[in-house]
Amino acid sequence: MSSSKTSRRGIERGLYKSLAPAFAWQEKDQGYQEKGRCAQDVHGERKESERRRGGRTPIEIRAASAREGRGKGETKGVIPGGFLRKVLIALKKKENVEKIAGELLSDIAGVLFLEDIEDGVEDVEVLVLFQWRGVIGEGLIGRLRSLKFIQALTAGVNHLPFEEIPENVLVASNSGANAGYIAEHAFALMLAAAKRLFLHDRLLRKGEFRQDIFSKPLRGSVLGILGLGSIGRRILELGRSFGMKVYAVRKSGKPEAGAEFVGTPDDLPYVLREADYLVIALPLTRHTEGLIGERELSLMKRDAVLVNVSRGKIIDQEALYRHLLSNREFTACLDVWWNYPRAEESFRQDFPFEKLPNVIMTPHIAPLVPGYFENMLRHALENVRTFLLWDSPANIVDRKDYVP
Amino acid sequence: MSSSKTSRRGIERGLYKSLAPAFAWQEKDQGYQEKGRCAQDVHGERKESERRRGGRTPIEIRAASAREGRGKGETKGVIPGGFLRKVLIALKKKENVEKIAGELLSDIAGVLFLEDIEDGVEDVEVLVLFQWRGVIGEGLIGRLRSLKFIQALTAGVNHLPFEEIPENVLVASNSGANAGYIAEHAFALMLAAAKRLFLHDRLLRKGEFRQDIFSKPLRGSVLGILGLGSIGRRILELGRSFGMKVYAVRKSGKPEAGAEFVGTPDDLPYVLREADYLVIALPLTRHTEGLIGERELSLMKRDAVLVNVSRGKIIDQEALYRHLLSNREFTACLDVWWNYPRAEESFRQDFPFEKLPNVIMTPHIAPLVPGYFENMLRHALENVRTFLLWDSPANIVDRKDYVP
Repeated sequence: MSSSKTSRRGIERGLYKSLAPAFAWQEKDQGYQEKGRCAQDVHGERKESERRRGGRTPIEIRAASAREGRGKGETKGVIPGGFLRKVLIALKKKENVEKIAGELLSDIAGVLFLEDIEDGVEDVEVLVLFQWRGVIGEGLIGRLRSLKFIQALTAGVNHLPFEEIPENVLVASNSGANAGYIAEHAFALMLAAAKRLFLHDRLLRKGEFRQDIFSKPLRGSVLGILGLGSIGRRILELGRSFGMKVYAVRKSGKPEAGAEFVGTPDDLPYVLREADYLVIALPLTRHTEGLIGERELSLMKRDAVLVNVSRGKIIDQEALYRHLLSNREFTACLDVWWNYPRAEESFRQDFPFEKLPNVIMTPHIAPLVPGYFENMLRHALENVRTFLLWDSPANIVDRKDYVP
Repeated sequence: MSSSKTSRRGIERGLYKSLAPAFAWQEKDQGYQEKGRCAQDVHGERKESERRRGGRTPIEIRAASAREGRGKGETKGVIPGGFLRKVLIALKKKENVEKIAGELLSDIAGVLFLEDIEDGVEDVEVLVLFQWRGVIGEGLIGRLRSLKFIQALTAGVNHLPFEEIPENVLVASNSGANAGYIAEHAFALMLAAAKRLFLHDRLLRKGEFRQDIFSKPLRGSVLGILGLGSIGRRILELGRSFGMKVYAVRKSGKPEAGAEFVGTPDDLPYVLREADYLVIALPLTRHTEGLIGERELSLMKRDAVLVNVSRGKIIDQEALYRHLLSNREFTACLDVWWNYPRAEESFRQDFPFEKLPNVIMTPHIAPLVPGYFENMLRHALENVRTFLLWDSPANIVDRKDYVP
């Protein structure tokens, strides 16, 4: 029953399921695309940065020559294979995916989709993927003999089997794509706990008008943040806007503007003790799995609010359940879980969190706003573009964080 | 059954009840006082402003002479009556109230409490009050023959019977005292609706992992704000931090930094049409009662989120109930109500809001954080001090907004 024994597959299956609605949504609602501000801003920045580097890059000049050789009619839209360097986007070919790939890559690369892999993938240099299991498989990865760069669409890459990926292949996460929405969700959960919305709403519906149950303020309180990647930094900004004092832990311990304190993982006990609210915004790696266990929980304030919007397994499941059971003023706000249901399965953890009043539960939906898929794809393909043109992609992960 | 027929007493009784816990809390928990940042900051600003005005004021010099005449031993703490100008604080004498009054007024005024009114109130110039009914009464107000200034402890003054208050008496609200906490509560409600926390939590507890139910983003969406007093302006600031576009309506129509649009009440239809989220932060006056009725609701987006943290009667009760019933994607987040229960009564509105899934309900608790009462008292007594020393108090209300 201990969380560490739960198979890794749980997360992968969950992720698989968690990604499916993106596609469902793509089909039924295209109307919100203009809301994808984040990626569009990044897009704007790219244009600026390319301009600053002095117009066309050597590769663009080569691409332009190639286009001239091939005739102008073929230069627009997605060109399936046979054109300069190849990018395989491991998704089904759909209008919105093709459109974004066309905008961001077609002038410098040939783009393939899952439907195209029978045409030959030996010269594919870049693989863009959502999930691995059930999509990539050993057969395919073995055939990608020219692979240099894997770009994930997700901010977390703990679902990739690093042991199957050749060591010379760079892997990039998609950190930053949906950071803003994940931070919004973290604050939604934190504020719902602080203002006891669930308790008051339930009592009021029964006719109980209980003004003796007070709220916790955000202003003046201490917000602990574990991890200062793009999500953690956005949470820091919002915390400052609410007048909170921010105490953070990050691997480097490097100071961050706006934080009262930033420490290394050695300072975790200090931050746990001080935090009125604690948000976990870490990647799930060999080093962070089970980071928050019985001892860590015991250091926290009696009435603290713990928010997890990254990956469930960073917290020890049994330890958290027991802590919630014996500390009724402590609240856990969980968007991420240990076990994810397959399609048609019920949601079920190893411990009955659903019976506890001091938990607020959401089904890994922090980034799921209309347009989020397009956002995510744009953000990822921007990085692929940077890899292809400048060989300096962002968000490269350290494989030693995932395999010994 | 229409809301306009509900007696005014409802609110007053409600307010009466809503204030009671403050006193209850004073007795049981003094430990959070250090969190009362707001009032303390204002305090700091006062000292600075007094310094800038060139040290002691003429009244302070007179006060000092009077103290010298009376002997130094009597100059500290609360001096009950007989000392220069008189302030009646219509609260029971309790340690925390006496302490704050001592800090802020004892050097320039004599302070009376409810227990002291038999000693003579004919020369009381300032009345500080929480509730009116059951406390002030006709007998008392008739005896306050020197009254010049009434300072409310609440941000809203709609519970005062202006027809009983002589026209030459200035009335000040306590706008600003708890604006930060009320804005936090508004965002708690707004985010809970945007992220569908209640729906997801309920489904997940039943085992339903529903990632096809998307969230609404805050970033890039339009936040409508009715009223740009201290609460509205704080909501504007937070909205900007979340990346929202702010469209506001205020009486003056005066532009406000950070808002994309500020209009007069004539622009209400435009703001209603554009808003993804609409927060009401208006005082309840003759002009705002029933402001949001059937027509106004019909202009709003199908899936808009309406948040009321000011006074219930600004919305027409029946119109809102019917709108929620026939627009299931519309959400109302209500902290304020039309009817408030007396002690021992059940909470009950004229329409069964408690049966609707698209309402989030809290019992008028937006400002109720530990220390809020001391905050509020400090903020009010700062303004009394300004009245006494400089005759230029803030937050003077226009009595024409309350009586014809």
